[in-house]
Amino acid sequence: MFPLPTGYRYATAYAGIRKDRRDDVAIIVSDSPASAAGVFTTNLVQAAPVVLAKAHLKASRGKARAILVNAGNANCATRTGAKVALDSCKAVAKSLGIPVEQVLPASTGVIGVELDGSKITGAAPGLVKALGGDFESVAKAILTTDLVQKRAAARVQTKGGIVTLSGMTKGSGMIHPLMATTLAFVMTDARIPASDLKPMLRRATARSFNRLTVDGDTSTNDCIFLLANGATGSALTPNEKELFEEALTKLLEDLAMQIARDGEGATKLVTIDVSGTRTEAEAEKIARSISNSPLVKTAIYGNDANWGRILAAAGYAGVKFDPAQAEITMQGVLVCRGGLAAKFHEEELKHLLNTPDIHITFRLKGEGKGRARFFTCDFTEGYIKINASYRS
Amino acid sequence: MFPLPTGYRYATAYAGIRKDRRDDVAIIVSDSPASAAGVFTTNLVQAAPVVLAKAHLKASRGKARAILVNAGNANCATRTGAKVALDSCKAVAKSLGIPVEQVLPASTGVIGVELDGSKITGAAPGLVKALGGDFESVAKAILTTDLVQKRAAARVQTKGGIVTLSGMTKGSGMIHPLMATTLAFVMTDARIPASDLKPMLRRATARSFNRLTVDGDTSTNDCIFLLANGATGSALTPNEKELFEEALTKLLEDLAMQIARDGEGATKLVTIDVSGTRTEAEAEKIARSISNSPLVKTAIYGNDANWGRILAAAGYAGVKFDPAQAEITMQGVLVCRGGLAAKFHEEELKHLLNTPDIHITFRLKGEGKGRARFFTCDFTEGYIKINASYRS
Repeated sequence: MFPLPTGYRYATAYAGIRKDRRDDVAIIVSDSPASAAGVFTTNLVQAAPVVLAKAHLKASRGKARAILVNAGNANCATRTGAKVALDSCKAVAKSLGIPVEQVLPASTGVIGVELDGSKITGAAPGLVKALGGDFESVAKAILTTDLVQKRAAARVQTKGGIVTLSGMTKGSGMIHPLMATTLAFVMTDARIPASDLKPMLRRATARSFNRLTVDGDTSTNDCIFLLANGATGSALTPNEKELFEEALTKLLEDLAMQIARDGEGATKLVTIDVSGTRTEAEAEKIARSISNSPLVKTAIYGNDANWGRILAAAGYAGVKFDPAQAEITMQGVLVCRGGLAAKFHEEELKHLLNTPDIHITFRLKGEGKGRARFFTCDFTEGYIKINASYRS
Repeated sequence: MFPLPTGYRYATAYAGIRKDRRDDVAIIVSDSPASAAGVFTTNLVQAAPVVLAKAHLKASRGKARAILVNAGNANCATRTGAKVALDSCKAVAKSLGIPVEQVLPASTGVIGVELDGSKITGAAPGLVKALGGDFESVAKAILTTDLVQKRAAARVQTKGGIVTLSGMTKGSGMIHPLMATTLAFVMTDARIPASDLKPMLRRATARSFNRLTVDGDTSTNDCIFLLANGATGSALTPNEKELFEEALTKLLEDLAMQIARDGEGATKLVTIDVSGTRTEAEAEKIARSISNSPLVKTAIYGNDANWGRILAAAGYAGVKFDPAQAEITMQGVLVCRGGLAAKFHEEELKHLLNTPDIHITFRLKGEGKGRARFFTCDFTEGYIKINASYRS
């Protein structure tokens, strides 16, 4: 059974935003006002719901009762975007009988196409009536080019009882978060003030969603919301907060991995571990560079142990290192030692690479304690096919 | 007739470095010591010939008699790389009877595979005997996954006579120069001291090869050599130098365009003009970001006027601007005005995009005088196919 936190309800509907008849609008409602935090895209071009969600979090001082999300239209670079986002939140707020600033909006889909606000405002009363639907339906309703739904949960034992965190996410292309990514919603019944929630979410995101890339494109709509309604347990002790943050980080990492695995056209999840740099930031830079290299990603698709491309991508990452200290492994096989070819069995490694889970390590020998893990996927004809005709 | 500068000779041979039997080693020889300049990759991992060419230019104080180049092996991250590069230069120098530091080496091909030096040293005497071959054969011998040879020429009228510049280049993948790119050789019979040649080449490269991307991967072997042997004309006047540099910049831009058009798997050359930013550097940043976006590149492949992706890519370029000032055109058609959708005929534009030459402009309305042009290509299944199995 997928664990769910106490005190949340879910509903979805088809509002006619998508062309195909799949639910495209959903709400997640906390029975009581929850502490809320968000992290958002760093893209300069920000969709209307991103701008509004930020304003709502500010106006409510980190309180929220509902998340309102639609798929099929990003409501970005649209003339009427701000009004549509606000009207949609108002409609949900009215049906729920709560202040509008306690509704956090999110949208995903095509950019630059006007979103017909009446579709969402029209659906709002029905959505609220339908509350009591399941978490899974919401996880499905937010998908766009994704092939599978993505969710993860965690439980933390506290003195006040076991608290649950349950999260969902979507995303398959335009994935290269630099502050957050795509959409992700995490609900917990733990009792945590908003002032604690925000830095926790920021740190957890930095080590999970910010270490994920599918195609190097940072979306205009990325956001992660974290709601904590305190339905279970008592205020967390400092030690419990640490455990909670650890669980949150792992949960987000799990969701990020699910995104990479379901990357547009992807056949493989690639995990890249960089270590031995002076700092964590340096390790992250190198890992990001390797993860973003189309040449590395196509080689992995082709089961090709082309470690020279990994070394080259590390070389242009903008981190100073001595190539003679570089060691690279693929699937545990040492392919590069001291910056040069190591002896390995080419055909055997080709065979090992022919699997959906790829593990690459890039290690600098020496004193450095910096390390970072990054997730990406392989790069295939499928990505091209999906994106050459996304709007048609 | 393709114009050639006076005083240079060419030769190619098959040295057995490539698997397929195509010439893979070549020399370009100036009859007299030429002023020489080079720009090189900014990748931290630098191939042995890059390191050696830099040392030779330094030791010779910018004098060169010959360029020695091989394709099929990058001689990068190889145990014996430095020795192989030096021995190769020595063999050519000996056969020509010139100092070794007047030979500039360059290699292109796979990374991390030992290059058998005896193949080149063995070929050297024959190469020198074969001098008198044609420019075109060298332009062909340096190709790897390229489909077509790439060359360009220019002529400049000076008081001392007409001087000629002729250049060749190669490159199709791992193209994302940040200081130089791939291989390019430009020979001229103009009389220019090395001290002038170097800054000229650096500036011209900054505005041509550094504004080209195929896949965002910066190679370990990039270099551009410029030789000026003074066989024609007298020392240039300041005004003539300007004309020369202008011709050089255009020639390199022409070569860069040829690379983009022949990008791995590419079906379209994409020219991106950004204007209205505060500075040229800002315009370049935005243009680079748009040019590198796989989502933009796949949309162009699919004849899809998905301008939202162009706006999004500009938004994460790291340049501050007001999206409400953004105007975007595709094939001359206004698709985005004030950061929002402009009215355009979707089917008509789809038709206009179905052509090998794509032109995109991104303009910020306002006072800014910054502008930059960038070249890239579309992103197709062909790129994936080529790179999934490059080494096999």
